[in-house]
Amino acid sequence: MYSVNVRDHFMIAHSFRGGEFGPAQNLHGATYVVDATFRRGELDAGGVVVDIGRASEELKAILTALNYRNLDDDPAFAGRNTTTEVLAREIFERLARAIRGGTLGDAARGITSLSVTLRESHVAWGSYEGQI
Amino acid sequence: MYSVNVRDHFMIAHSFRGGEFGPAQNLHGATYVVDATFRRGELDAGGVVVDIGRASEELKAILTALNYRNLDDDPAFAGRNTTTEVLAREIFERLARAIRGGTLGDAARGITSLSVTLRESHVAWGSYEGQI
Amino acid sequence: MYSVNVRDHFMIAHSFRGGEFGPAQNLHGATYVVDATFRRGELDAGGVVVDIGRASEELKAILTALNYRNLDDDPAFAGRNTTTEVLAREIFERLARAIRGGTLGDAARGITSLSVTLRESHVAWGSYEGQI
Amino acid sequence: MYSVNVRDHFMIAHSFRGGEFGPAQNLHGATYVVDATFRRGELDAGGVVVDIGRASEELKAILTALNYRNLDDDPAFAGRNTTTEVLAREIFERLARAIRGGTLGDAARGITSLSVTLRESHVAWGSYEGQI
Amino acid sequence: MYSVNVRDHFMIAHSFRGGEFGPAQNLHGATYVVDATFRRGELDAGGVVVDIGRASEELKAILTALNYRNLDDDPAFAGRNTTTEVLAREIFERLARAIRGGTLGDAARGITSLSVTLRESHVAWGSYEGQI
Amino acid sequence: MYSVNVRDHFMIAHSFRGGEFGPAQNLHGATYVVDATFRRGELDAGGVVVDIGRASEELKAILTALNYRNLDDDPAFAGRNTTTEVLAREIFERLARAIRGGTLGDAARGITSLSVTLRESHVAWGSYEGQI
Repeated sequence: MYSVNVRDHFMIAHSFRGGEFGPAQNLHGATYVVDATFRRGELDAGGVVVDIGRASEELKAILTALNYRNLDDDPAFAGRNTTTEVLAREIFERLARAIRGGTLGDAARGITSLSVTLRESHVAWGSYEGQI
Repeated sequence: MYSVNVRDHFMIAHSFRGGEFGPAQNLHGATYVVDATFRRGELDAGGVVVDIGRASEELKAILTALNYRNLDDDPAFAGRNTTTEVLAREIFERLARAIRGGTLGDAARGITSLSVTLRESHVAWGSYEGQI
Repeated sequence: MYSVNVRDHFMIAHSFRGGEFGPAQNLHGATYVVDATFRRGELDAGGVVVDIGRASEELKAILTALNYRNLDDDPAFAGRNTTTEVLAREIFERLARAIRGGTLGDAARGITSLSVTLRESHVAWGSYEGQI
Repeated sequence: MYSVNVRDHFMIAHSFRGGEFGPAQNLHGATYVVDATFRRGELDAGGVVVDIGRASEELKAILTALNYRNLDDDPAFAGRNTTTEVLAREIFERLARAIRGGTLGDAARGITSLSVTLRESHVAWGSYEGQI
Repeated sequence: MYSVNVRDHFMIAHSFRGGEFGPAQNLHGATYVVDATFRRGELDAGGVVVDIGRASEELKAILTALNYRNLDDDPAFAGRNTTTEVLAREIFERLARAIRGGTLGDAARGITSLSVTLRESHVAWGSYEGQI
Repeated sequence: MYSVNVRDHFMIAHSFRGGEFGPAQNLHGATYVVDATFRRGELDAGGVVVDIGRASEELKAILTALNYRNLDDDPAFAGRNTTTEVLAREIFERLARAIRGGTLGDAARGITSLSVTLRESHVAWGSYEGQI
């Protein structure tokens, strides 16, 4: 199995509902450093998992739509806590759509799985991994 | 599959038995930076894999019991080399017990697998991963 | 010149005033991973720059007062942009007061300079360094 | 499942064929920081996945054969782009041969899988993982 | 003294002249992860050392001019070894010109010193620091 | 001012005397990842601060003499706590002797200052910097 990873980041405000979140129920924020890892069993004709330039641009486009915002006001997350796990899943879905829709190129349709990891500090991260 | 990771560290002395360990047969020591990664297929009602506060506290409690000690004198490891791999397994077992016993909260019982990675330098690490 | 560094982090929401900040004028947020570096010419009697346990606790106390908050509502920053640079200076001043006031122990009064670095992502950081 | 990782690096020149590579069609180069991760279900009698000294030496020997070279001139890669993915696979195959051939010791024959990851910058990496 | 750092990277081929370079006399290559650190005594009116967006763009422009090239063919380095140290100095000079020329904005003329660090692997880096 | 850094590591056991060290008064241990940074105003004829191969070998030789040992038994540290700061100073002195004695080559005598940093975990480090 081959993998390729690209990294970028975004910075948001949000708050969590639920007593188990303690002070994180307050409006606060986070920098998320995002790793998107694309996987497939065989390489394309050029010898790559994915066109890394296109993959980086698509990841940046997805993160730009989230960057510098208060996620409490984003209808995409209405009624949900925007935990690291939930955000990882949402970015996974948006990247998966781009892969299936051909935005990353025809060859990228050979990608069979994807993982998205959000590092929120030097000691904590969350991720979502699934099939494409 | 969702994952969440917390990081902490501990510092111990030990020595290894067996000629293949060369100078590491001498009493020496190590800092282990520990990553505990919790995994499950679906999130709990709050949108998380595990209460990250409780997970961090439990990891710290487990590492505090090992920290600042000479593991050659610890009965838990009698007759065994406390290699990075063996220590990763031991910390895995202690965390797994905490999950199964409810110390990390009832929702944490939804965790299906766990990996424990010990980074011993900038060039080497070992880990153990298993089902819960 | 000897140095010792301790690291911790905090997570806040804020917004910036001034067209040069572009989309960062929106309410957003950041994780800041903070390095506090203490310096002095000679070590104390125990062979250290500072009691690293006390230094870590004081840094944590200072960051806890900022953590999980919207800095736009914090009177300490009224009328100022809470840029990485401004936050580094503010944390420097709070740590400097702790050093001068003896909170880090009598021996810590031998510290002659301090730098505070805030890492806001994998590609950007800011810091403030000054005399004590 | 237990894992052990060793890290080393090599520095090469190369160029890529195919319009999708854009300016990377020019002769350029890269530093690859290589992580080789060995995995097995049970530890050997000494309590390790692999003799980490032998594993490090073998990885170094394999990388030395590639280091400080222009891969465009290396017959091992004739007619292929030496992408990160292709290089990860090649290093995987050379390490797999060493494991199967006994170079890493008899006990190392218990290794069941191996992954090789090449970090080419602070934002991109590629890897290959397979059975032994 | 305040500092702000931005990070980017470039990938080149080159070779060195001089027996002391051993196998690095061969055509090979490197990824350089570049940190540009801007310093000044007082912040500008907006509370920053430099407009971090402009600084990032200027660094990227300077690195793009070097990226994906064989530096042995670059007239800017004719007759010189393009060691990490020499490249750090060259990037310093190009950034210093941009600061003095106003490319980073009028406020950036308050910058008093600059350091440029090139990380060439996980174990080695070089840098140049000077006054503006 | 130019700088070049090389990195290596060593692993030791030790204990500290003094109630302020708390549980670190027990025999325990540490991995120290060591950065040695060499500085000078002008480069040598080949365009480098120091022959990085020789510098790496000398650092390794110095660390090998400390590696896999119990520093409580090392006469070099009799009557002193082997804190991170004290170890940084000792390694500084040994490297400084090598520079002055010509072990790093004649050109290395142009080095004017040196810093030695010991990273003991992901959150703490100590260093010593001085003139050569």
